[in-house]
Amino acid sequence: MSDSEEKVRVVFLPSGRRGEVSKGTTLLGAARALGADIDSSCGGRAICGRCQIRIMEGDFPKEGIRSSAEHVTPPGEAEKKYDRLRGLKEGRRLACQTRITGDVVVDVPPESQIHQQVVRKDAETAEVAVDPLVRALLVDVERPDMEKPSSDFARLAAAVEEEWGLSDLRPSTAVLPRLQKALREGDWQVTAIIHQADADSPPLLLDVRPGFDETLVGLAVDIGSTTIAAHLTDLHTGQVLAAGGLMNPQIRFGEDLMSRVSHAMMSEGGTEEMRNAVREAVNRLAADVAAQAGFSPSDILDAVFVGNPVMHHLFLGIDPRELGQAPFALAVGEALEMPAHTLGLDIAPAGRVYLLPCIAGHVGADAAAVVLAEAPHDRDEISLIVDVGTNAEIILGNRERLLACSSPTGPAFEGAQISSGQRAAPGAIERVRIDRETLAPRFKVIGVEPWSDEEGFAEAIAEIGITGICGSGIIEAVAEMYLAGIIHSDGRFNEVLADTSPHVERRGRGFAYILHAGEPEISVTQEDVRAIQLAKAALHAGARLLMDEFGIDRVDRIRLAGAFGNHIDPLHAMILGLIPDCSPDNVSSAGNAAGTGARMALVSREARREIEDVVRRIEKIETAVEPRFQEHFVAAMAIPHATASYESLARVIDLPRPATTAQRPRAGRRNRRSRSAPRND
Amino acid sequence: MSDSEEKVRVVFLPSGRRGEVSKGTTLLGAARALGADIDSSCGGRAICGRCQIRIMEGDFPKEGIRSSAEHVTPPGEAEKKYDRLRGLKEGRRLACQTRITGDVVVDVPPESQIHQQVVRKDAETAEVAVDPLVRALLVDVERPDMEKPSSDFARLAAAVEEEWGLSDLRPSTAVLPRLQKALREGDWQVTAIIHQADADSPPLLLDVRPGFDETLVGLAVDIGSTTIAAHLTDLHTGQVLAAGGLMNPQIRFGEDLMSRVSHAMMSEGGTEEMRNAVREAVNRLAADVAAQAGFSPSDILDAVFVGNPVMHHLFLGIDPRELGQAPFALAVGEALEMPAHTLGLDIAPAGRVYLLPCIAGHVGADAAAVVLAEAPHDRDEISLIVDVGTNAEIILGNRERLLACSSPTGPAFEGAQISSGQRAAPGAIERVRIDRETLAPRFKVIGVEPWSDEEGFAEAIAEIGITGICGSGIIEAVAEMYLAGIIHSDGRFNEVLADTSPHVERRGRGFAYILHAGEPEISVTQEDVRAIQLAKAALHAGARLLMDEFGIDRVDRIRLAGAFGNHIDPLHAMILGLIPDCSPDNVSSAGNAAGTGARMALVSREARREIEDVVRRIEKIETAVEPRFQEHFVAAMAIPHATASYESLARVIDLPRPATTAQRPRAGRRNRRSRSAPRND
Repeated sequence: MSDSEEKVRVVFLPSGRRGEVSKGTTLLGAARALGADIDSSCGGRAICGRCQIRIMEGDFPKEGIRSSAEHVTPPGEAEKKYDRLRGLKEGRRLACQTRITGDVVVDVPPESQIHQQVVRKDAETAEVAVDPLVRALLVDVERPDMEKPSSDFARLAAAVEEEWGLSDLRPSTAVLPRLQKALREGDWQVTAIIHQADADSPPLLLDVRPGFDETLVGLAVDIGSTTIAAHLTDLHTGQVLAAGGLMNPQIRFGEDLMSRVSHAMMSEGGTEEMRNAVREAVNRLAADVAAQAGFSPSDILDAVFVGNPVMHHLFLGIDPRELGQAPFALAVGEALEMPAHTLGLDIAPAGRVYLLPCIAGHVGADAAAVVLAEAPHDRDEISLIVDVGTNAEIILGNRERLLACSSPTGPAFEGAQISSGQRAAPGAIERVRIDRETLAPRFKVIGVEPWSDEEGFAEAIAEIGITGICGSGIIEAVAEMYLAGIIHSDGRFNEVLADTSPHVERRGRGFAYILHAGEPEISVTQEDVRAIQLAKAALHAGARLLMDEFGIDRVDRIRLAGAFGNHIDPLHAMILGLIPDCSPDNVSSAGNAAGTGARMALVSREARREIEDVVRRIEKIETAVEPRFQEHFVAAMAIPHATASYESLARVIDLPRPATTAQRPRAGRRNRRSRSAPRND
Repeated sequence: MSDSEEKVRVVFLPSGRRGEVSKGTTLLGAARALGADIDSSCGGRAICGRCQIRIMEGDFPKEGIRSSAEHVTPPGEAEKKYDRLRGLKEGRRLACQTRITGDVVVDVPPESQIHQQVVRKDAETAEVAVDPLVRALLVDVERPDMEKPSSDFARLAAAVEEEWGLSDLRPSTAVLPRLQKALREGDWQVTAIIHQADADSPPLLLDVRPGFDETLVGLAVDIGSTTIAAHLTDLHTGQVLAAGGLMNPQIRFGEDLMSRVSHAMMSEGGTEEMRNAVREAVNRLAADVAAQAGFSPSDILDAVFVGNPVMHHLFLGIDPRELGQAPFALAVGEALEMPAHTLGLDIAPAGRVYLLPCIAGHVGADAAAVVLAEAPHDRDEISLIVDVGTNAEIILGNRERLLACSSPTGPAFEGAQISSGQRAAPGAIERVRIDRETLAPRFKVIGVEPWSDEEGFAEAIAEIGITGICGSGIIEAVAEMYLAGIIHSDGRFNEVLADTSPHVERRGRGFAYILHAGEPEISVTQEDVRAIQLAKAALHAGARLLMDEFGIDRVDRIRLAGAFGNHIDPLHAMILGLIPDCSPDNVSSAGNAAGTGARMALVSREARREIEDVVRRIEKIETAVEPRFQEHFVAAMAIPHATASYESLARVIDLPRPATTAQRPRAGRRNRRSRSAPRND
């Protein structure tokens, strides 16, 4: 053909891929030849509509091209049919149906690009290009022919190789019984659902659907000790289709991690009990979120799990006892990719599962997911990322170097082991302010919009009741008590107030500050203050230990991850000295970073490789073997911890002088500290 | 060290590998460096004793070496301990403990070679080098260290890489819960059980055992429509440890293949019923043979399955309906390698399964196993291999070319649809002779040693009873009836005999030959003779079709495979014209070739690659679309089929002239046939 001899010039935007192709080439063909990025899952059959582009009009002097919509063939029957059935936006064309007759500049909109960027949750979150491990590929399979006997699978594999360039296709065991029916129902046109763990590993056929059906659904799950959260996600776009959560039923074997480890050690079959409990909950949750979005759990083709090391091990059926005692050896920390049914999961019969790597014996796959979402390794500034639970998981570093440790904060930040403490749930006091003059409290309760001193509170609280105080509430309460002079910098109550203030009472040999005098009474006792001091000292000491190791005395930014990080006020955290010195402008909540990281790993093969590489590089610091940890711990007991934080804070909030001057930070003291060699702190 | 500078010469026999190594090198190290083949599974720790060798004494002028046992270090403590505990044969040394101090010639006995040859069953069977996919490797794993946190699995993988050169080890899901306990029980010395499907695929950790435990057990299973046979096999040696069989419980859904296909089509859930029935039977059989040899089914690490296409599909849970109708498309014919639990098999939790490839819609994985065992592709002579069941699977060819087809013989050869027919089981007449003069029969019954006319028969038969006649019995009976003139060459009874012989009776409009006049009466009727004629004509026609395709008129050798092939007398098969012309010396039974092939695939990765390659090369001929098949079929109805077989036979047995001369083969007729162009037969 003379057509094919004549060359025309094509430029694809925004990639800038350009070159000459033979006149008559389709735009999709040209894009593939030139390495430009246009999506398609129907293989150029005008069915999927993923390859929509726009022909630019006008002169492009830099390219030496005059581009015009008249330089391509007009819409043919197939394209008109697609427009009728599914609608093409004004000016859009299907690249697979449009042949090039003259020079053109082609705009590929974001939704037509293969590796489109997932919309970021906020400016601080890492970007990820959607590049799922599971793909839906339309193929036309040759019919069986007695003259050339071959299996249906062999002909399907040949079609996948010819049409999509994927060789060495292998069948999952689960797809085999479905294969022949789907091929015949689809009249030998089927959508092959294919999983490929690595670009160079053999593609695995997970499912075959009659005709064209490119639905691809995955599940990202964060298994917390208290709650299990799941996001049903569209694997094409990374969008969340439905979300849900459940209490972790392992709670009946122990509220905190150590009591679950004990259950595994003390009780025959305890590990299997807890394994079964969490897997059943995950199955219920999967069914629930799938139903929310109009799917069946068997539509879920890929699932990603994150969790702390004990949750990770119990989910895998591994006895966690080694995590409860030195040297805290993980059974397995590497990322795992496996068939879902080996874990007893009721998703697609050939569905796959990915577990992010654990970082160390106390720093789990949830922390790895936080790192993936936060990407401190992509920044020049030094980030301190803190995820607080029973253990605080602490990450410090930048693109040069990343360090991680965990610190035994205990359960106080989760409201446990606090006299009026409870989990964050409706009825719990979550925010507290104390009047500096009258010492009267006002507070906000979860599930009730107005504060306790605002209009409508009495009516609203009548329904729910005030049941306790949660982690963020107790932190604000202690910080406010300190700011109001109710407690000294060393945590002791100002005894005078027991006689002078109606809000402070003597209790046995100690004192209590009464937040709410009703039934039950909600108060903060001397023991509660001590528990918070211990927890915050542990957190602070862990962060300081990493800073010593890194050789710095100050971090550039601090991110507070997890439910706790989401709820506490960074300012109150700094007043208490929970976190080291940093400009308050640079302290923020990372939201549910573990969940975000799990979703990134779900939709992107590249994200999996990235976090596997980063975790290998992270330097793991074991606080238990570092004598300096104890030193930092003791030094961090006071409120506020004597760092520049106090002065930083004084610039942004009304920070009264504390009641005791003995421990009040002075400029000289701060300066002396910042002069000291960081490694000898 | 000056020792390591000085070089000594080493020659390994029988491989002939030779070279110089540094003085002080161990013999095992030298063997590895020079590419000589010495086994070891303890990695040179004087534990496994697999590396035993003998130092030759004397001059080896060709090598220029004087070899002496004094040219190596004497046995040390470790070797003496091994000798005490497990015993070393006189003159044997452990190669891993023996350091070379001077020139030596080393004899490596067969049992110390890695790829030792399995002892062949008979001279006709292919050889196979044992090279199992599962290996047991002793490793010393580093203890966990809080200063350098890493997972137990990571340290195990590092040990496997360092000690055995296997990188990128991956854990099976099932091994994870066992890992930490085994490492601690073994005091950080464990045997890693590793599976590698291909030399370049990542090794998979199936199990970990405390200390040294190299037991490796596999199972080879032949799923027949009637019986399921299993061989428990030592994966180190290929030796059968136990064998067993069960009736295929699918029989309750239909005796023959077509009635099982019908059950799948007609009855909702029929495929799953039959799938579950066969899998349960396999699990029972696995437990049974494992117990016989003192093992648990969970010791079975790898299993190989063969079966005809319907059995193959039902075992995989695939609806077999497409195999029952043109174009007879297999769902999958490719070899499959998968985790055992995906098939519901109760062997080792991370156990693996391999299914040999099917050749075509009617030529199954059992036929592929026969090809593997018989290896016609390794021979210059042209083999015809026949495996008879409800379908006869027929293979023809040599190293140049292999052809395969199946032929619808029906169930007559299995004793079904025969008036006194039954399956081969105790009580069935399996062999028959008829006196040429008196026409009196004598026969042999399965389970009874003496023939019916020999001493002790009456006593022996009293216990069992004569219950029917099986496939081999009916073939011999019909052949003998022909030789004795009871039936004509066209299969009709010689009517005269009904009046003259007490052994022939008129029955309705036909006749019967009375084999046994008891209760029940065992006789061969006109209809029985017709059924055998149809079956043998189909078999013969299939073989002829392949011979046409190959362009030959005569094969060099014939092998009769399967239970049927094992029991019928090749001479009687030739008299009947079951098989085409061949020198009787070159017709033999291949025994249980399918089972042998399955065992070969079980112990050898190379055997799997070989049969996969060969099956891809086999030309599949579909008898249903070949008009010549019908022609051959009609031509093959007569007894004997007019080929040279008759004359060949006349040379080796007392072959009386048949009763009818009209069809008696004459030299001229034979010559005319052999002159005809083979392709226009």
